[in-house]
Amino acid sequence: MDITSLQNTRIKHIVKLREDKRQRKKDGLILVEGFDELTLALSCGFVPQTLLSAPELASQTLTFPFAESSESLTVSRGVFEKISYRDNPDGWLGIFPMPSRELEELPLSETPLVLIAESVEKPGNLGAILRTADAARVDAVLVCDPRVDVWNPNVIRASRGAVFAVPVVEVESLRALNWLRSRKMRVVAASPSGSVAYTSVDMKGPLAIAVGTEDEGLTEFWMSAADACVNIPMNGKVNSLNVSIAAALMIYEAKRQRSL
Amino acid sequence: MDITSLQNTRIKHIVKLREDKRQRKKDGLILVEGFDELTLALSCGFVPQTLLSAPELASQTLTFPFAESSESLTVSRGVFEKISYRDNPDGWLGIFPMPSRELEELPLSETPLVLIAESVEKPGNLGAILRTADAARVDAVLVCDPRVDVWNPNVIRASRGAVFAVPVVEVESLRALNWLRSRKMRVVAASPSGSVAYTSVDMKGPLAIAVGTEDEGLTEFWMSAADACVNIPMNGKVNSLNVSIAAALMIYEAKRQRSL
Repeated sequence: MDITSLQNTRIKHIVKLREDKRQRKKDGLILVEGFDELTLALSCGFVPQTLLSAPELASQTLTFPFAESSESLTVSRGVFEKISYRDNPDGWLGIFPMPSRELEELPLSETPLVLIAESVEKPGNLGAILRTADAARVDAVLVCDPRVDVWNPNVIRASRGAVFAVPVVEVESLRALNWLRSRKMRVVAASPSGSVAYTSVDMKGPLAIAVGTEDEGLTEFWMSAADACVNIPMNGKVNSLNVSIAAALMIYEAKRQRSL
Repeated sequence: MDITSLQNTRIKHIVKLREDKRQRKKDGLILVEGFDELTLALSCGFVPQTLLSAPELASQTLTFPFAESSESLTVSRGVFEKISYRDNPDGWLGIFPMPSRELEELPLSETPLVLIAESVEKPGNLGAILRTADAARVDAVLVCDPRVDVWNPNVIRASRGAVFAVPVVEVESLRALNWLRSRKMRVVAASPSGSVAYTSVDMKGPLAIAVGTEDEGLTEFWMSAADACVNIPMNGKVNSLNVSIAAALMIYEAKRQRSL
């Protein structure tokens, strides 16, 4: 067993990485907990700096071929429970260099479909959006003016690792818009005040779908930049859709029009 | 101020109602916290047994005409913070008789659209499903063999009160199926193993859409009872959609086919 002391400085550092976004940014490191999420990150080509496992907890063996540069450490159950951010830890946690994707490097398909998520703030919602983006295989998710860090452990968990499978970039709205314009992509904004139903606009060409925060919706920036503003018809009493659900309805409508 | 002591027996009882599903069932009472949720419950015809407000916290005044039978109490800030289940309580909480809806009493439209949510376990997911069901104005949500209590405070909160706007019934799967059959409703089950895409089946007639748990999907019971099993196409690496998103895609596809 390599580490058994809760006072170990590396363990304290991991707890800091877990809890403090600034620490993650400063060190350029992120944490990935869980066997499934790790397997996915590895299969997507991400190489851990350090891999920790707690043999007393881990029932599965990671057989994925590691880059030789990765360090592997075993820790005691108590130590793992200290660094874990889950209720029922499965004994696997990796420290990875923070993935940095640049807008300019994003690979785009012939008829790209991109999602703009403006100022999303709840990790659970961003995670659900990323799961949908993965399943629908959108070209990219641009998280504009984010209020939650994409590499927040709760986003990674809520995304079930989809954050590694989907090209996701954090970017200011203006830069994102310029990039979309230069790629000749149409922008369709989803908003309760949109003038037409989302099913009545043509989403077959190169397209960016924009969704905003739960409470305030899209800012004026995206509303006026959009080529079309559409609504998702609501006929109830509360009439509030979760932002991840609005995003999914828009994305899958585009997919339907493109024959899924 | 009517109540200022944290040791007040009624306050202790409210905390118990908040935390213990069995206590709620036993007493036939539920808690509704928050100005917006209360307003919605009231506007949907639910009459509180007791209404508590903390003048030190409440910035809004409930002007809704109460049934004369409702008791109104003011409590101190400290007391309210003890009974509240929110981070930033707004000073309003109501105790309501547990709504009891019977399958047989559900009003159905001419071409009903019903959602079957089997064994949903996360309050957040059930809440999001109810928000969508409200927005899409489905006729009813049948929560079959539930693993979470519909009147769990977290479901009420996550639903933003939609739980009061949508006819929702907790019922065993077999009873639900018999009821659907007697109403001549077609059952379409959503499952990754479904043989056709969800957009390719006819959802225009009287319809029940069935979705299952996140991890296990629908049970064999609903899979074999269904008239059609459909999938939501997934082409990613994680390929897992949140159950509330799968439900929304199905519901809004039915709406689209019915011209929203």
